[in-house]
Amino acid sequence: MNIEMIRASAKRAEGHVRRTPMLTSPFLDEIAGRRILLKPEALQHTGSFKYRGGWSAVSTLTDNALKAGVIAFSSGNHAQGVALAAMEHGVPAVIVMPSDAPQMKIENTRALGAEVVLYDRAGGEDRNEIGNRLAEERGLTLIKPFDEPQVIAGQGTCGLEIAEQAAELGVAEGDVLVCCGGGGLTSGISLALEAEAPDLRVRPVEPEEFDDVTRSLASGKIEANTRVSGSICDAIITQSPGEITFPIMHRLCGPGIVVSEENCLHAMAHAFARLKLVLEPGGAIALAAALFHGDEINGEAVIAVASGGNVDAPMFQQALEKYGSEI
Amino acid sequence: MNIEMIRASAKRAEGHVRRTPMLTSPFLDEIAGRRILLKPEALQHTGSFKYRGGWSAVSTLTDNALKAGVIAFSSGNHAQGVALAAMEHGVPAVIVMPSDAPQMKIENTRALGAEVVLYDRAGGEDRNEIGNRLAEERGLTLIKPFDEPQVIAGQGTCGLEIAEQAAELGVAEGDVLVCCGGGGLTSGISLALEAEAPDLRVRPVEPEEFDDVTRSLASGKIEANTRVSGSICDAIITQSPGEITFPIMHRLCGPGIVVSEENCLHAMAHAFARLKLVLEPGGAIALAAALFHGDEINGEAVIAVASGGNVDAPMFQQALEKYGSEI
Repeated sequence: MNIEMIRASAKRAEGHVRRTPMLTSPFLDEIAGRRILLKPEALQHTGSFKYRGGWSAVSTLTDNALKAGVIAFSSGNHAQGVALAAMEHGVPAVIVMPSDAPQMKIENTRALGAEVVLYDRAGGEDRNEIGNRLAEERGLTLIKPFDEPQVIAGQGTCGLEIAEQAAELGVAEGDVLVCCGGGGLTSGISLALEAEAPDLRVRPVEPEEFDDVTRSLASGKIEANTRVSGSICDAIITQSPGEITFPIMHRLCGPGIVVSEENCLHAMAHAFARLKLVLEPGGAIALAAALFHGDEINGEAVIAVASGGNVDAPMFQQALEKYGSEI
Repeated sequence: MNIEMIRASAKRAEGHVRRTPMLTSPFLDEIAGRRILLKPEALQHTGSFKYRGGWSAVSTLTDNALKAGVIAFSSGNHAQGVALAAMEHGVPAVIVMPSDAPQMKIENTRALGAEVVLYDRAGGEDRNEIGNRLAEERGLTLIKPFDEPQVIAGQGTCGLEIAEQAAELGVAEGDVLVCCGGGGLTSGISLALEAEAPDLRVRPVEPEEFDDVTRSLASGKIEANTRVSGSICDAIITQSPGEITFPIMHRLCGPGIVVSEENCLHAMAHAFARLKLVLEPGGAIALAAALFHGDEINGEAVIAVASGGNVDAPMFQQALEKYGSEI
C-alpha cells in the first residue's frame, strides 16, 4: 500500500471519478472560529466517496474476473459505488446488504443493476461469511469495503485533490477531519497527504459508542465496538479498523474525535443552509467536529471531508425540524 | 455587451468566483429520457450565481466609487452577491429588499455587512425609485440586478464554464435550460455560448403566471407580468425582461418554457435525492423543465442551470413532504 498505487488509481479514474470542489462559507467560519474548507464527497457519483474505491478496484480486475463478476458487502454506500463501477464495466455485481440499511440505499443499489442479498445485522449474521460463501459458489471477486489495497488507493485519490485544493486556497498546514468507519478513506487520504501535503494531518471522526478507531489509535492495537448497528451514522459503523488500514492510520493520523448524533444532525442543517449540500448523518460528522469540537482541533484552518449524502427524506426533515430554524 | 466583456470578467473573477462542477445522475437521465447535465450554481458563493455578477460589477468600479459605496435592490440573491463582493472589496453596501423576501436571504445579507432597507412590494412601492433616491442622496453606485452590462458579463462566466464542461462530457449540441427572471443570467450565458459552443442553445424557463420573457420572445417585444409577487419562485420574478437583456435573448434564445410551482417542488426533491443538492424553487425550475417538459426540448442531452439554493427550511421540508417518499 503506497502513494504510487494512489497515483495509478487517479490515472485510471480520469473521466470517470468526479473531481469534487472545495466549499467554504463565512458563516461556518464564524461558528468554528477558524476557516473551514469542506470537501463534499456527497457530490461524487452515487452520492459518496465509495465510488472512488469501487471504480479503483473494478478497473484493476483481469478479463476473466470481470466476466465472472464482483461481490461486495456494505451498508449502502460501498454497495452503490461498486454497483455503478461494475455496471460501467459491464460486469454482474452481487451486493450483500444489512436489512436495516436506509431504504434509498437498497433501492439505488438495485437500480444500478446489482443483485441485492439482504442479511440480518442485529440478529448476528456475519456479512463476511455470507460474502465469502457467495464469492466461492459463483466465482465472484470479493471487493471488500475498506481493507483492500485497491479500494484504499481509490479513496486516496480524494486526498490528492485535497492537497491540490488546499494549496490553491492557501492552506498548507492543519487538521483534516475525515468521517471514519473501517478506515479506507482515512488511511487513503493519510497516505496521499503524507506524500503531497505533509503538514496536513488526518484526524478520524467517529460517532459516540462507535469509536473503535479512536480507541485503537489510543491503545495502539485494534479495538472493537460492542455493537455494529443502532446509529443514525449507519455509513461509518464497522466492528473495528482493518488490518491494512489500522497500521497506516496509527503511523499517520492524529487522535480521533468522537461526536454525538445530535451534533451530526445539527451539522446537516448547517450544510443545508450554508453550503446547499445534502449530507447523511455519518457524512456530516467531520463538519460537526469542525463546528462543535474546535478545542480538539489545531491550526487556523481546518479541512473537513463530507463523505456522503445518501439520506432518506424523513431523516433529513428531522435534522431541519430540530435545527433548521436556528440557522 | 459582448464576449470580450465576459472573458475580461472571468479573468477578474479568478481566485474569487467558484468554478461550480457539472453534475449528472443516471436516475435523472431515466426520468428525462435523455442525459441531463446539471450546473449547480447553488454551490456558488452566497448560494447563487448572483455573486458572479456582483463580483464582476464591483471589481470594475473606480477608487472613488468604491470609497462611496454601492447600492442594489433585490429579492435576496443579488443582494447577497453584491453584499459579499462589496465586503471583499472593503466598501459599504446598501441593499433594498422587499419585506416579503425569504427571511434567510434578508438575514444573510445583513450578516454579510450590508445595510438592508426593506420596502413593501405588494403595496406598490417601486424599488427602482427607492434605489435611485438613496443612490443620489449618498453618492452610491447603483448595481442593477440584471440590466447592467458588467452584471451580465459576470453571469456570462457561468456560460464559459458550461461550454468547457459540456465539451468534456461529450455534449456539443442541444438545449441549455436557464432559470430566468430579468434575463441577466440567460443573456450572459447566451453570449458566452454563441462564442464558445454555438450549437448549444439557451431556453429561458419561467414559472406559470410570471412568463414575461416567454411571451416577450413570442411577440418580439418586451411584455410585462401583471403581478411581481406571490410565487414560491421569488428569486426569478421580475416585471419584464431588461432593455439590454431582451434584445440578446431575442437574438439568441429558443422559445421559453413555462413550468408549474408543483413541478419545481418535485424537482427540488429529485435534486435532494439524486444530486445531494439543496435548490430553492426558482433555482430548481430548469431541472423541472428537463424532467417534466421533455416534449418541448431538443436533443439527446440537455443542460440545466440550477441558479440558487437559498431556501428556508420550511419550504424545503414542504418539497420533501410532498415528493420525498416517491423518489
